Amino acid sequence: MAKDKANRPRRPRAETPRGFRDWFGAEVEARAAMLGAITEVYRRYGFDPLETSGIETVEALGKFLPDVDRPNEGVFAFQDDDETWLALRYDLTAPLARVYAQHQQTLPTPYRRFAVGPVWRNEKPGPGRFRQFWQCDADTVGAASVAADAEICAMLADALEAAGISRGDYLVRINNRKVLDGVMEVAGLHDVSDPTRFSIERGIVVRAIDKLDRLGPDGVLALLGEGRKDDSGDFTRGANLSTQQIEIIMGFVDASRLVREELENGPPNPDLRIPSGMGFVVEDADRHSEGVGRLWNWAVLDHLMRLVGQSRSGEEGIRELGEIIDLLQAQGYGPDRIRLDPSVVRGLGYYTGPVYEAELTFEILDEKGRPRQFGSVAGGGRYDDLVKRFTGQLTPATGVSIGVDRLLAALAAKGRGPKEGGGPVVVCVMDRARMADYAAMTGALRAAGLRAETFLGGGKMAKQLAYADRRMSPVAVIAGEDEFARGVVQLKDMALGARLAAGIETNEEWKAQPAQLEVPRDRLVEAVEAMIARAGG
Amino acid sequence: MAKDKANRPRRPRAETPRGFRDWFGAEVEARAAMLGAITEVYRRYGFDPLETSGIETVEALGKFLPDVDRPNEGVFAFQDDDETWLALRYDLTAPLARVYAQHQQTLPTPYRRFAVGPVWRNEKPGPGRFRQFWQCDADTVGAASVAADAEICAMLADALEAAGISRGDYLVRINNRKVLDGVMEVAGLHDVSDPTRFSIERGIVVRAIDKLDRLGPDGVLALLGEGRKDDSGDFTRGANLSTQQIEIIMGFVDASRLVREELENGPPNPDLRIPSGMGFVVEDADRHSEGVGRLWNWAVLDHLMRLVGQSRSGEEGIRELGEIIDLLQAQGYGPDRIRLDPSVVRGLGYYTGPVYEAELTFEILDEKGRPRQFGSVAGGGRYDDLVKRFTGQLTPATGVSIGVDRLLAALAAKGRGPKEGGGPVVVCVMDRARMADYAAMTGALRAAGLRAETFLGGGKMAKQLAYADRRMSPVAVIAGEDEFARGVVQLKDMALGARLAAGIETNEEWKAQPAQLEVPRDRLVEAVEAMIARAGG
Repeated sequence: MAKDKANRPRRPRAETPRGFRDWFGAEVEARAAMLGAITEVYRRYGFDPLETSGIETVEALGKFLPDVDRPNEGVFAFQDDDETWLALRYDLTAPLARVYAQHQQTLPTPYRRFAVGPVWRNEKPGPGRFRQFWQCDADTVGAASVAADAEICAMLADALEAAGISRGDYLVRINNRKVLDGVMEVAGLHDVSDPTRFSIERGIVVRAIDKLDRLGPDGVLALLGEGRKDDSGDFTRGANLSTQQIEIIMGFVDASRLVREELENGPPNPDLRIPSGMGFVVEDADRHSEGVGRLWNWAVLDHLMRLVGQSRSGEEGIRELGEIIDLLQAQGYGPDRIRLDPSVVRGLGYYTGPVYEAELTFEILDEKGRPRQFGSVAGGGRYDDLVKRFTGQLTPATGVSIGVDRLLAALAAKGRGPKEGGGPVVVCVMDRARMADYAAMTGALRAAGLRAETFLGGGKMAKQLAYADRRMSPVAVIAGEDEFARGVVQLKDMALGARLAAGIETNEEWKAQPAQLEVPRDRLVEAVEAMIARAGG
Repeated sequence: MAKDKANRPRRPRAETPRGFRDWFGAEVEARAAMLGAITEVYRRYGFDPLETSGIETVEALGKFLPDVDRPNEGVFAFQDDDETWLALRYDLTAPLARVYAQHQQTLPTPYRRFAVGPVWRNEKPGPGRFRQFWQCDADTVGAASVAADAEICAMLADALEAAGISRGDYLVRINNRKVLDGVMEVAGLHDVSDPTRFSIERGIVVRAIDKLDRLGPDGVLALLGEGRKDDSGDFTRGANLSTQQIEIIMGFVDASRLVREELENGPPNPDLRIPSGMGFVVEDADRHSEGVGRLWNWAVLDHLMRLVGQSRSGEEGIRELGEIIDLLQAQGYGPDRIRLDPSVVRGLGYYTGPVYEAELTFEILDEKGRPRQFGSVAGGGRYDDLVKRFTGQLTPATGVSIGVDRLLAALAAKGRGPKEGGGPVVVCVMDRARMADYAAMTGALRAAGLRAETFLGGGKMAKQLAYADRRMSPVAVIAGEDEFARGVVQLKDMALGARLAAGIETNEEWKAQPAQLEVPRDRLVEAVEAMIARAGG
């Protein structure tokens, strides 16, 4: 049967699938180092690792992704051969709830776990927005006290600093879904006798608030009213609220700006009505000695109290926030690091109490060269009902998720991205009949703990040295017939060669160093070590 | 709208999906430590990390899984919204081929990469057999020389030892698909004028050989003939070969037994006809001084030479194996660690040359308590055509994959599984109004680098100490109203308490140590450190 070209199957395309990416060498190492630093903080805080598979049942995952109307939209789902619907996890929180419900008899309570791994979102990819990304989470299950939330916020600040974000370059912003519930109540969007009433409107409001950063107050305003047409002409239906309802909600959403104006336009409000008997006290020092910064959190609480203090869940939410701020303040985490911000709502549907978000406050240039704030790199909150879905029993839980890939992108944008380097010593092959000898030299270098390899490709000297250069090799080892006869090897200082070539080395002493050196073969290892030490010095 | 119980959606089941599992605390840490040890060996050999996403296009993955007839069987596949078929990767080799084809202009050649991560197989789960498992691979792309294969085998031996497998407890077994091709040729199952002829028979033969470990020679014999009925009554169709064909193939499959008998039943074959001019030489020392062990690899080559030496691909395969053995012997990797074994064929469809497999040689008890060899934990080989699928250009490549989860299971079976321990210091909460004080103590311990946490759950002293015990805490810190008034804390030595309770400590001096100690609050950190040091000593 002769082969017919037309019948030959076409070649598969060598392409990363749409919305996915590959990570090479130094990028992989940079992430591993960052995960090591963050999980070291988690461990020190008493969290233990847990790993689940990438696949869960669709029913266990639940439907909590934002902006999702159709079932299974937002996840990659497929049917098992026993007809169970399976899906790739979209976060590490839903699997934790499943694990805790499944193993609560044998797990300690509280169960404090951290988890690291990729998650998948079946979303439209965009610039810098991928359909697989890494998260690094820590959660406490079984702790009702907001001390658990305060601890997570403090740990998040510590973890960001361990990951290489300087203090002042990030802000952990806290809010409480209960305060938002209070706002809904005050705005007439919550009917205590029928909690499901107005749920569509509330959904629109939450998603609108979550977009404040991106759309600005006017965009949110439009979504609370009739709706909003975006740049592409697509129309998003609004919540159709009344002017009065919109005013209440904007007073909450825009609280940060209102409080800032209040504090900047005069002496700190002399009537600052900090709720009494709530376990936190504004010291006189807070009012005066450190100005607006230190007073911030209390001024926000005061503003919220005026707005929703008469609602029961609003008042409860404000008291919880006060306790959190109180605990954090006592541990030295002031509003320079952790601050109240009513515009934080978090998109995921499962939050029930305090919510938090870490944003990076420095500016970067976007893909069109315009400066913009880097934005959110981590988020979390309390989700007291997620385990209850499985067990029927209330199980308090709270936790945070750090978006590791976004954090790496942020460091790269600050010019602190992954650095290539530390390539292997390359033992060049001049004489193929001598492979065992080259392998022995490479073996000796490896035995001394050095990275080393015999060149295994094709090509002559120039190609082998170009390879060593491309691999960032510190040293190339060269031995041909002549060298073997004389019992010596040539060492080429690749680092010095590169520095000389790039004109980096102007120091006369350096220039005097030979870029190539002949040494006895039995002194190979120590001579290579010395050459590497010189390059590193 | 009153809630109707019948209408309430049923609760989701809290179950790990069928064929998947969860890894807790010490299990996660044990795997991380093993991966660290193995990748450190890979790095030292000059390999750089690469990470790809879990998802590839189905066409990029290709169909190379063994025992798979229907398309997409064996993988978890799903359709993207642009109708592209996507699938979870089933190994780390197919994605590497895609990456190399896509980026070969910018990657060094040879491209030496290692990769670590989960892979997914849509298979029927069984005891100890999961549908997600971790692999840890290293591959050299762009090196045609079998020196690259020899290097991978040596590195595999080093990596297994770094992972904690003692020398003598493993064996790297090598074969060559080209020798198998020679056997097919000699047995009349390879028609040079039409390579696709007999491909079904060859497929059955390869899969049958791959099952030698499990089915024994009789099972393989049946599959080469009419077929085989297994214990469940299922019938697997055989290759229907003639007696003469079967004899040739069994001479190959069963070579190890035949060579062993030859060597054991008399003095080493005086006619040992090592192929001359093939770059390897049997020294007199090999023939005499170290007996059967050292001679093994040469005796196998001799046996194969007699069997398929007259076939061109058989002869080429034997010469390659000789070169590999020669290089390994020169580096001190003898048949005690790396040995030829014609029964190794590897199930994956993409191999074209040398193939290798690491098996653990010690016995474990299976799920029914019967002793059995642990078996294969790693495998690999040369796949010169895998990149060519994309580019049309021949690109030699070879590499190995270590099945990390199986290796961990092996260590556990040897009684060297993950050890719990190193739990956090637990600061108990006696007085909820003092949360800031407890948090300050915990913070001081953490600042000293200790794992520490404030107890955040509910419950009194006994429950809190039970929690500390469950977490393997070394020390519990206790302070109530009285202690705060006197400026002291109580330290409870949990490790000593546990040892005393378990009757482990009989030493009088130890018994004299107090399990509880009162220290000034400002000496908390040093006192805790001293108590931990004592427990560790």
